[in-house]
Amino acid sequence: MSDREIRKTLGGVTAAKGFTAASTAAGIKYQGREDMAFIFSEEPCECAGTFTRNKVKAACVKWDMDLVASGKKLHGVVINSGIANACTGEKGYDACRKTAEAVARVKGVGADSVAVASTGVIGMHLPVEKLEKGVEDMAALLSHDIEAGTKASKAIMTTDTVNKEMAVSFMIDGKEVTLGGMSKGSGMIHPDMCTMLSFITTDIDIERGLLQKAVSEVIDDTFNMITVDGDTSTNDTFMILANSLAGNKKIESEDEDYELFKKALFTVCRYLARTMASDGEGATKLFEARVLNASSKEDARKLGRAVVGSNLSKAAIFGCDANFGRFLCAMGYSGADFKEEDVELFFESREGRLKVFDHGVPLDFDEDEAVKIMKAPEVSVVIDMNEGEYSADAWGCDLTYDYVKINADYRS
Amino acid sequence: MSDREIRKTLGGVTAAKGFTAASTAAGIKYQGREDMAFIFSEEPCECAGTFTRNKVKAACVKWDMDLVASGKKLHGVVINSGIANACTGEKGYDACRKTAEAVARVKGVGADSVAVASTGVIGMHLPVEKLEKGVEDMAALLSHDIEAGTKASKAIMTTDTVNKEMAVSFMIDGKEVTLGGMSKGSGMIHPDMCTMLSFITTDIDIERGLLQKAVSEVIDDTFNMITVDGDTSTNDTFMILANSLAGNKKIESEDEDYELFKKALFTVCRYLARTMASDGEGATKLFEARVLNASSKEDARKLGRAVVGSNLSKAAIFGCDANFGRFLCAMGYSGADFKEEDVELFFESREGRLKVFDHGVPLDFDEDEAVKIMKAPEVSVVIDMNEGEYSADAWGCDLTYDYVKINADYRS
Repeated sequence: MSDREIRKTLGGVTAAKGFTAASTAAGIKYQGREDMAFIFSEEPCECAGTFTRNKVKAACVKWDMDLVASGKKLHGVVINSGIANACTGEKGYDACRKTAEAVARVKGVGADSVAVASTGVIGMHLPVEKLEKGVEDMAALLSHDIEAGTKASKAIMTTDTVNKEMAVSFMIDGKEVTLGGMSKGSGMIHPDMCTMLSFITTDIDIERGLLQKAVSEVIDDTFNMITVDGDTSTNDTFMILANSLAGNKKIESEDEDYELFKKALFTVCRYLARTMASDGEGATKLFEARVLNASSKEDARKLGRAVVGSNLSKAAIFGCDANFGRFLCAMGYSGADFKEEDVELFFESREGRLKVFDHGVPLDFDEDEAVKIMKAPEVSVVIDMNEGEYSADAWGCDLTYDYVKINADYRS
Repeated sequence: MSDREIRKTLGGVTAAKGFTAASTAAGIKYQGREDMAFIFSEEPCECAGTFTRNKVKAACVKWDMDLVASGKKLHGVVINSGIANACTGEKGYDACRKTAEAVARVKGVGADSVAVASTGVIGMHLPVEKLEKGVEDMAALLSHDIEAGTKASKAIMTTDTVNKEMAVSFMIDGKEVTLGGMSKGSGMIHPDMCTMLSFITTDIDIERGLLQKAVSEVIDDTFNMITVDGDTSTNDTFMILANSLAGNKKIESEDEDYELFKKALFTVCRYLARTMASDGEGATKLFEARVLNASSKEDARKLGRAVVGSNLSKAAIFGCDANFGRFLCAMGYSGADFKEEDVELFFESREGRLKVFDHGVPLDFDEDEAVKIMKAPEVSVVIDMNEGEYSADAWGCDLTYDYVKINADYRS
């Protein structure tokens, strides 16, 4: 490959050198399916993370935030689905510590080098003994195989219907660097962050502060631009582990290697974020808002997120109803500053492109053409603000009967 | 009745002295049902109003805001359902002027004494000739009968399933004062304000500034505390007309008469707001959040609105699933400041009361008991913050299959 090319490669969290994974059915809540995953690197890793801004943080989020803040290197992360370990008080934090201590015992590393993450029902306690047993079982199964990463990715799914993983590789001064990740998330998904867990592993050698800087910048244009239902979760966690085994010259400044790494990270995060949006609970299609020529980046983001986050817009997308006034309405309460007289609106998909609103004036358009465009599995509304030079993409999904069905009795 | 008693009386906008109403089937969008209403007082009225904070304001909202700001007295308001006259540019504002001018011609009043309001599809033009014809027809039908007010109230319904009107009377220095109102609103309902139109008429004699002050205070605890789908509309309008025919000594200061008037206004607005919430699109029940002992009034409001506004909470209420963690999650992203360790949560309805969360710790509770409580037509979650002395109630509804059905193809 060329010097600056980013190439898709196989797998997810076990794609990068030195990373292993395993999964098991610990019987935490679900029966008959795997519900725990373990990612591990013998080589200690620099780490960075971004966590939910919800005031109510799950115990595992508090545990991981402490780890990231400590500046210490990590060896891995243990994840479970079924129970979120949120709103569980001190007992919940104890469960995190005991899980990390189980890893410490079987792998001979410090408990303060092990992150934990949970997803599932809020307000229930984790069965700690089952988790400890799960850690022991998984420790014996850890593997660098691509398939081990895929199984780990599947084990953390809750209402997700598709497995979400991706990996890329690129060259830095003659050394191949690999970066791969997995995500889960389907409901309780909203910017800042979504109800999602996402773990990226990479063998790059990079200074910790730059790793965190790249994460923060990429997250704002990827995971923070998706919404399924407007509910920012208690458990949202994004973590990246970098074990330096690629052997590249360490990245210590914002040079072109740093930019290449950031681009690779963006590629993987954008894919995972879009896939989560299109796999939103009950979704039948991906709903994208592409905001063009806004007067600021922040306004572009607000406008896009408000449009894909509106229940009324989402229901219209489900019904293939070109009721574009709902998008304008959502833009109006987004908090962004604009004049409706400047706005142009289009529907777009692989089936074509149709202008429906032009500088404050609704257009007479062909309803059949609109339905044809909206029936595609990925539908975009293109919003040209004609006011500045800033753009943003936001992703969501349609609101369907199945969303209600899934969430009317999630716990049973 | 006693001096300070507020008594429910019959009717809505025609309950107060001197107010007449009429309605007609103008064929604006719907066929075979009434879709225009007209409220009129020969005696000129002081007025006050509150309007949507959506950046995209319907033409009629701009028209009415200009009227309220002008300080001039009003004679009435013309309302239509079917088309919202939003995102319609200058042509939309012209439609407002022409409608008001039609009233001016038939009733011999100034066009600048006539408010207009619309509800329905955004981004479509009003058929102005039909509105003008409708005004002429209604002018001939104006009546002070209770029934005329009820018919007007029904004519402005869109996806509403129940008619919403209420009137009360009370005494001020030996004179009977009456205050009545009507509302429509079912979807696109969210604080600041809901997608709703609400008109109150009263024969009280009150100084204009105090009228506006009372409105602003009452709205914050009533109409701004309901949400159906999180979509703040382009058309939200609350207006009150006061024609002074009760003959009371004019209210010119914040004395006890002012307080009595405000209490009457609160009584009517709270009823109309709650009724709109429970008639939310597709709703099967009223969902109330009662926040107690918060550290500030604004925090109490934020907490309540976030809980009743959460799709996940609303779906759980529909499914009678006591998944209280979703309420805590919504509280966590509400923007309010609190500690989960202080919080107590209860479910409550006419079937009983059940504690589910106690100072940060989830309780083992009887699921059957929870289902019994949640099956009631009005379900409350009582949230004791144990942090201060401020309280707020918020109202919403459950999220159901029918919400999706109604909104997937609203325009057809």
